[in-house]
Amino acid sequence: MLSVTRRMRFSAAHRLFNPDLSDEENDRIFGLCSNPAGHGHNYVLEVTVAGEIEPTTGMIVDLNALRDYLDREVITHLDHKNLNVDVGFLKGHIPTAEVLASRIWDLIEANLPAGKLVEVRVYESENNYAARRAGPA
Amino acid sequence: MLSVTRRMRFSAAHRLFNPDLSDEENDRIFGLCSNPAGHGHNYVLEVTVAGEIEPTTGMIVDLNALRDYLDREVITHLDHKNLNVDVGFLKGHIPTAEVLASRIWDLIEANLPAGKLVEVRVYESENNYAARRAGPA
Amino acid sequence: MLSVTRRMRFSAAHRLFNPDLSDEENDRIFGLCSNPAGHGHNYVLEVTVAGEIEPTTGMIVDLNALRDYLDREVITHLDHKNLNVDVGFLKGHIPTAEVLASRIWDLIEANLPAGKLVEVRVYESENNYAARRAGPA
Amino acid sequence: MLSVTRRMRFSAAHRLFNPDLSDEENDRIFGLCSNPAGHGHNYVLEVTVAGEIEPTTGMIVDLNALRDYLDREVITHLDHKNLNVDVGFLKGHIPTAEVLASRIWDLIEANLPAGKLVEVRVYESENNYAARRAGPA
Amino acid sequence: MLSVTRRMRFSAAHRLFNPDLSDEENDRIFGLCSNPAGHGHNYVLEVTVAGEIEPTTGMIVDLNALRDYLDREVITHLDHKNLNVDVGFLKGHIPTAEVLASRIWDLIEANLPAGKLVEVRVYESENNYAARRAGPA
Amino acid sequence: MLSVTRRMRFSAAHRLFNPDLSDEENDRIFGLCSNPAGHGHNYVLEVTVAGEIEPTTGMIVDLNALRDYLDREVITHLDHKNLNVDVGFLKGHIPTAEVLASRIWDLIEANLPAGKLVEVRVYESENNYAARRAGPA
Repeated sequence: MLSVTRRMRFSAAHRLFNPDLSDEENDRIFGLCSNPAGHGHNYVLEVTVAGEIEPTTGMIVDLNALRDYLDREVITHLDHKNLNVDVGFLKGHIPTAEVLASRIWDLIEANLPAGKLVEVRVYESENNYAARRAGPA
Repeated sequence: MLSVTRRMRFSAAHRLFNPDLSDEENDRIFGLCSNPAGHGHNYVLEVTVAGEIEPTTGMIVDLNALRDYLDREVITHLDHKNLNVDVGFLKGHIPTAEVLASRIWDLIEANLPAGKLVEVRVYESENNYAARRAGPA
Repeated sequence: MLSVTRRMRFSAAHRLFNPDLSDEENDRIFGLCSNPAGHGHNYVLEVTVAGEIEPTTGMIVDLNALRDYLDREVITHLDHKNLNVDVGFLKGHIPTAEVLASRIWDLIEANLPAGKLVEVRVYESENNYAARRAGPA
Repeated sequence: MLSVTRRMRFSAAHRLFNPDLSDEENDRIFGLCSNPAGHGHNYVLEVTVAGEIEPTTGMIVDLNALRDYLDREVITHLDHKNLNVDVGFLKGHIPTAEVLASRIWDLIEANLPAGKLVEVRVYESENNYAARRAGPA
Repeated sequence: MLSVTRRMRFSAAHRLFNPDLSDEENDRIFGLCSNPAGHGHNYVLEVTVAGEIEPTTGMIVDLNALRDYLDREVITHLDHKNLNVDVGFLKGHIPTAEVLASRIWDLIEANLPAGKLVEVRVYESENNYAARRAGPA
Repeated sequence: MLSVTRRMRFSAAHRLFNPDLSDEENDRIFGLCSNPAGHGHNYVLEVTVAGEIEPTTGMIVDLNALRDYLDREVITHLDHKNLNVDVGFLKGHIPTAEVLASRIWDLIEANLPAGKLVEVRVYESENNYAARRAGPA
């Protein structure tokens, strides 16, 4: 299998909070991450696309076209935003890294400019990331 | 000159916004950084302290004591917080990286466990940082 | 498949040395890595756990609970230790990165707070790492 | 599955250019990457090899032997070279990252000192990489 | 002293070569770096500007304006270029990292949007960089 | 002022321990760092040298010559060694990062192939480093 990966960045605020729970339960489950006024991260998004090398171009996909697509369809909605408030495709979701990876997968899988989506990875910090990959659960 | 530097991390939300200005002026000056619901960063703080090597320990300062001091006096007030709302020593300040570096300098200069403060550096992202250093302006 | 990964760090001394071999054979096989007084590394451990998103929390596993578990069950035994001398679960093993990854897998697989272990990765330096993954050999 | 990965580096010039196309077509497809006098990168190559731990050494493969092999058979041909001009195994290929990963795989798969090749990864910059992996397309 | 630093990137080809010397002398002085068809790097440029915090904005300089200025006046001339062939302000210079740092300093010092230039740093690889700083030689 | 910096790496074991103190005092001062069997780090050494650009070469110093000098005179004595046992120029010193920076400065200052030494920096981990710089204390 041959793939290419494009790395993108966005800076966003978020708060881990479930509105169906009491403040005490939110505190117990999410601790510091549930601070009412929020906190934030420099997120890194990595999108991996598989395919065959196209002989005319030597490319699986045009990485600049992939970057422009991701910038327009994903990053512009997330960068310098509050993930609990400002982002349509996260409405009704708790914005953890795994939810972000999963929602971004759903958003882009059908519409990629070329290639087959094999991984969406979201780094929340240098110490943790979430990934959704093609294949058996 | 001999110095040691300790690196610390905190994740925080902020918004660049001057309450004395109109929304239009805030937009013009701060652009995306002024998003009303905020955004955020994984900040890195580096504190550099100079001194002589103490022969009994081979150390300028005990870096673990410096870490504990910075954790208790600085990081605990900033990590998983909103810099516009939750932080006493930033009240009345616009929380740019240079303001953070300058306010942290003022906060710790007189109370360091040992050594002489020579630099406070605040990375807001991999693409920019601010620094306050000892010496002529 | 959806997963989360937690990165941990430890600093340790080690020596590649097989007590069943002569000094000459150890030298020939392990070279510099067999220096009698040892050498050391800043190791990075990455543990990846797969599962479903739990709707109440938006999480596969609580990453802070995973961190605390790894800190208590793994890192505390390795950090600021000599891997040839101080670590019970490495006794009788040559402490290469692949042995470390494999032993840590065996140590934690059955007792994770939640989720299914899919990868243990051990970076010995910026130039090499070992990984044990679920799946066919 | 247990594996070890070795990271190597090389600095090279390249130009994305298909000699069968007109200058206008090259410009349209490759844009800035087709600058006639070329541009360049600090490439990172990661090679991952799987196997069993050999009990006498605690190793899957001797990473120093793997490094020396990759240095001699791969890096020496690429480092401080122009990928369009100087490299025998890239002749007739457009030197994208995915072509590099695929050609390096073909070059080394049969001749590794030990272990089974499972991944060749080529980072062109901090923002993109290509990978060829064992397994179904 | 208070400063802010902006990090920019460019990918370029170059060759260390002095046209006034013989091929043998170029080889002896520059070795691999003198490969006739060139090689290349992912360069990092860091520009540091000092000043006072402007109370209305909390900023020394607007980092986005600095980024746009550097992009327009510096990066656009260097990115995806050959430093020996394509760059007006390097004509007649051997494109080492120290020459780049010095030429970029001369290019921008008088025209910065705001603040006083205190350092231009050019990373050629993860293993070396050059810097020009204000102050006594 | 114009300078170039070369980054080198070494992996070493060490133990913070003062033989003139009791075990209890060593424990109290150095804590985990005093583990009798030692621990270790992947150290990074950065050496900065200032000077004028030599017009024939475009260089302040030949960075490859500097690398070879540092490799031969410094790194070979430290890499894959135990800093408490194996290193002549550390005998009688407690091997902290600041002691390392200071001893390496003393070792190389008079014998550099070219240029004037302005900084020796030693990173012990991603979280701390020590530096010795030219200039007033």
